[in-house]
Order: sequence, then C-alpha cells, then structure tokens
Amino acid sequence: MDISEIGGEFALIERLAKEPVSKNIIKGISDDAAVIKVGRSYIVLTADTMVEGDHFSLEYFTPQQIGEKAVEVNVSDIGAMGAKPGYFLVSLVLSEKIQVETIENIYKGMRQAGKKYRIEIIGGNITHGKQLIIDICMIGEARKENLKFRSSAKPGDYIMVSGDLGSSTAGLNLFLKNIEGFSKVKKKHLEPQAKFYKVEPFLKYINAMIDVSDGLASEVKRICEQSGAGAILYADSVPIKPETKKAAIICGKNALEYALYGGEDFELVYTVSKENSGRVKGFKVGEITHKKGIRIIKNGKEELIKKHGYDHFLT
Amino acid sequence: MDISEIGGEFALIERLAKEPVSKNIIKGISDDAAVIKVGRSYIVLTADTMVEGDHFSLEYFTPQQIGEKAVEVNVSDIGAMGAKPGYFLVSLVLSEKIQVETIENIYKGMRQAGKKYRIEIIGGNITHGKQLIIDICMIGEARKENLKFRSSAKPGDYIMVSGDLGSSTAGLNLFLKNIEGFSKVKKKHLEPQAKFYKVEPFLKYINAMIDVSDGLASEVKRICEQSGAGAILYADSVPIKPETKKAAIICGKNALEYALYGGEDFELVYTVSKENSGRVKGFKVGEITHKKGIRIIKNGKEELIKKHGYDHFLT
Repeated sequence: MDISEIGGEFALIERLAKEPVSKNIIKGISDDAAVIKVGRSYIVLTADTMVEGDHFSLEYFTPQQIGEKAVEVNVSDIGAMGAKPGYFLVSLVLSEKIQVETIENIYKGMRQAGKKYRIEIIGGNITHGKQLIIDICMIGEARKENLKFRSSAKPGDYIMVSGDLGSSTAGLNLFLKNIEGFSKVKKKHLEPQAKFYKVEPFLKYINAMIDVSDGLASEVKRICEQSGAGAILYADSVPIKPETKKAAIICGKNALEYALYGGEDFELVYTVSKENSGRVKGFKVGEITHKKGIRIIKNGKEELIKKHGYDHFLT
Repeated sequence: MDISEIGGEFALIERLAKEPVSKNIIKGISDDAAVIKVGRSYIVLTADTMVEGDHFSLEYFTPQQIGEKAVEVNVSDIGAMGAKPGYFLVSLVLSEKIQVETIENIYKGMRQAGKKYRIEIIGGNITHGKQLIIDICMIGEARKENLKFRSSAKPGDYIMVSGDLGSSTAGLNLFLKNIEGFSKVKKKHLEPQAKFYKVEPFLKYINAMIDVSDGLASEVKRICEQSGAGAILYADSVPIKPETKKAAIICGKNALEYALYGGEDFELVYTVSKENSGRVKGFKVGEITHKKGIRIIKNGKEELIKKHGYDHFLT
C-alpha cells in the first residue's frame, strides 16, 4: 500500500502512534513536542528533519540560512509547548559532492540561531547519503503550569494567531517561479523565526497552543481533533500582509490559500477563553465550537474546510 | 574542499565541535552520547542515523530487523556512557515508493527492541526524501557515579572487550559477496545487540568506556586521544570466533582486520586498572600506555596502527 492511499504522512503518523505506557510520559506522539518527567523536571523533546529539495534548496538559501532555519523550526516546536529550549543534537546526512565550507556555514547558522536562545549543540552524528539532510533533536524544559497542549481547547474559546500568515509560502512560490523583487516576503521563507517571545507574557491565559508549520487550517484541525471540538474561522480576520497578497497575485495564487494551507510561518495559534481574551495579544481568527469539523466564513458564506496542509506524499 | 581532503567524517566532526559553554553540559560532542544536568538528574542523549544502502539494505534485512537495529545502536551508545535508556524519538525519511507495510514493520521492530529495554517512542517526524533514512534520538538517565567517559583511561589500565569482534563485518561481507550459509555470522550483522548488560555488574571498576561501532582500533584510538595516552594491543588476544575466521577466509579477507577496522559489533571496550582487573569480566586485548599512538603486537612484531575504521567519505 502506498502512503498516498492511506491519506498521506499525517495519516501515517496516526497509524504508527500508540498510547504511551510509562506514567512519566506526560505527552507522547501527538503534539509539537513530547513531554517527559525526569526527577522533578518537565523535559520537552522534539525532532525535525529538513531535506534538500523538499524543505530547502541550496539555489536560494545560503548554507547559513539553512542552519538557522533548522534550529528555528525546532525552537518553534519547543516554544509551542510553553517550554524553553536548552540543547540540541544535529544529525547530518551529506552527499559526497558537498563542500566542507558549506557544512561549516550550516553550523555557523545553527550556532548563530543557538546564540539567540542561549542554546548549544551537544552532540549528533554525520553520515553519508544521496542528499543533504539535517535532523535536529532539541531538548528543553518547562514549568508544569506553563505546559500547553493541543488538546486543551474549549468550545467558546477564541482562536488567535500571533502574527501574519502566508508570507513564507508566498516567498517559496516567488522563488519557484523565478520572480524578482519582494525581498521582504522572500526573507520570511529564508529566515523563519520562532515566535514564542510574542506569547510568553500572557502564556497563563492560553488554553491550547500549536505552531503553524502546515497552514492555519491544518493546525486548527489538529487542535480540534485532539480537543474533541470543531471550529469556525473568519476569512476576513486572517492576518495577511499587503505584500503577501501582491506576491500571491503575481504567482497566480490566492493569499488566503497560502495562509490556510501553506506552511512554515511558525506563528503560534492559541485558544483563549472569551473572558481572558482581553489579556492576550494577537489576531482573533475564529472560535472553537461544540460542532465538529472546521468551517470558514468567506464572503458571507459558511463552508466546511476539507483541504489539508502541504503533504509531501499527496502533492 | 571535499570531505575526503580533510580526512573524512571523523575529522569533520572534530572540525565542527566546539567547547561547551554551559556548565550544565557535563559532556558535549566527543563521546558516545552527551550528558547534561537537569535539576538533580544526569540526562544522557544520543542520535544515530541509519541510511539505506550505507547502513542497511532492504535486500537482506527484514524491515523489522532494520527497526530493531536502529534502536539497538542507540541503546548501545547510551549504555556506553554507563546510563540506562528511557525514551526515543524517530525521524523517518521515506521515499515515495516505500510501502506502508514496510514502515509498519520497521516500527514493529523498534517497539520490539524497545520492549526489551522498557523504553518507548515519544515522538519524531516523517518526511520525504530519495532514500529510506531512520534517525533515532534517544534519551536516558545515569547516576553521576556511573557515568563513563572516553577520556578517563589511565596509563597502565588494561583494555578489555566484552565479547567477540569482527562478526558483523564478516556477515556484511558474506551478504555483499552473495555467499550462502554462515547464518550465525550473518545474524550478528542483521540483529546487533547492545551489550550493556555484560558490563553492568562491574561498572564501578571501569575507568573509560566506548562501544565498538567502527572497529577496535578506532575505538581504542578515541579513548587514547581523549585520555592523552597511547595503547598497545595484542593481536592474538582479540576475541574472534572460528566461524568469523572461516567467513573471512571465504571472503578473501582477514578476520583480524574485521575486528580492528570493521564495525557494528557493539561490544563494549573498557579500561580497568590492573588492581581491579580481577573484578571484571571480558577479554584483555591490550594496555593503555604513556607512549602516544596505537601499536599492535602481531606475530611477535610491534607495529604502529595508521589505518582507521570505516569512513563513508574515504572508502
């Protein structure tokens, strides 16, 4: 059976996941990162893989940007749990033709991003393969009361986003179509940043949280599936920058589609009760509902979202 | 500059490694696994990557054996630190043609090996690439007094090995040359086992420890480099099973070469002071010396070992 036949990579992950046995596993496969209890500490762990050709191209990324991105995407996952990153391990798969200078610059980028968060490389391994692959495993720590799960959204919660969406996908499309200009939009794709700092001041008012790696619709769907709820999104409220809209038009695409089904914006999506909503910052893009399914109000009409975010095995 | 020009993957790792800054990093890049202090706990972390075609072949490995091996090699690294494994994350890179059943069987193998050690999968990710790659990041815990580093060997220490060497490389060579029979030797390659249980009873008498992933000579060299010492090995004392010797002859190779420069035996190499040597089990294969360099006594002659273990970028 092909992966596409069972519904892509996310369906595959669900098929492979099992309920954890150890009571020290606070959160296993099903969130941005895993949480385990060691002694009195809540340790948060995540691993993210970037594959040349699929997640980056050496044609428009500098090696340093690749290194930085590899760290930022993992920091984003740790942050989406309400935790702080601490250390990381780097597994590199290198093709024979890669130059030592390229690898050194990737490491330079990883160290630069690491410096920002005061985190360090503590290990990893280097091996040989057909294409450049960077897999980072990051470990962080959280206070128990700060831990944020996808499963904690409640009907009636507002769905908030920490910043504008769609720009990373717009940037990617500009590169793929060889369109000049739009340096700001392109930069969003080349130099994504984890956004935990935006939500940290009001973390205690957040119920559920997730980072946007596969588009708003996909992330809200994950929150809803795990919280046993549904959601309604307001298309007009989804924050999209004018330059992202312009870039989308030039690419012959719709910026809202980028925001809903694109990815790698690494903004945070979080739900907050109505009574606490005045205490948090961000863009209100929808509401958690008792009614299952993810619906969107667009041009005055309500429709059910059936599309999913980017899936390497379906597209 | 090509990786081969600077001396292969191990030279590259040394080039990329930096001294850790945080005082909570007890051991960074330079050992079988990293050690960090979190609260009062000593957390041990390692990551190991297996690449289709380089580390395994679907032609002679069953998917279940691949999954088991991916877990065992990481358990071996955790064990070589004197620690116990606890949890692991799985990063899978899958090619489009791979079947869902294959992946399910790889997971079955990982869970089966996990069950042996009472450890669980807590996370990871799945992505798309040109070849099947399994990267496992494993986390364990150690008592401070049990931690074993490569850097703690002392001149005068005996060098001991927990079991016979060379069989995994012999097995691999039999497969590569399509030679029938030798099922026991082949099994050593297909189903490697972490050997921590062998040394656990006398852990407190061990000074330095490492697991054999790249041949005895390479591992002793690592211990010596980090301990600021040298070593003398006795060729006649290196434990090699008769069937490994037979297999080597049929492959037109030398079994001692397999033991010294082959890999993936996952036996443990450890050093013990002479006075404690009666309290430990294993095979005495040499001695740590003040004199730098790794020498071997073979057929009554002493020679300096210049060769290194298997390097994907040099062979």
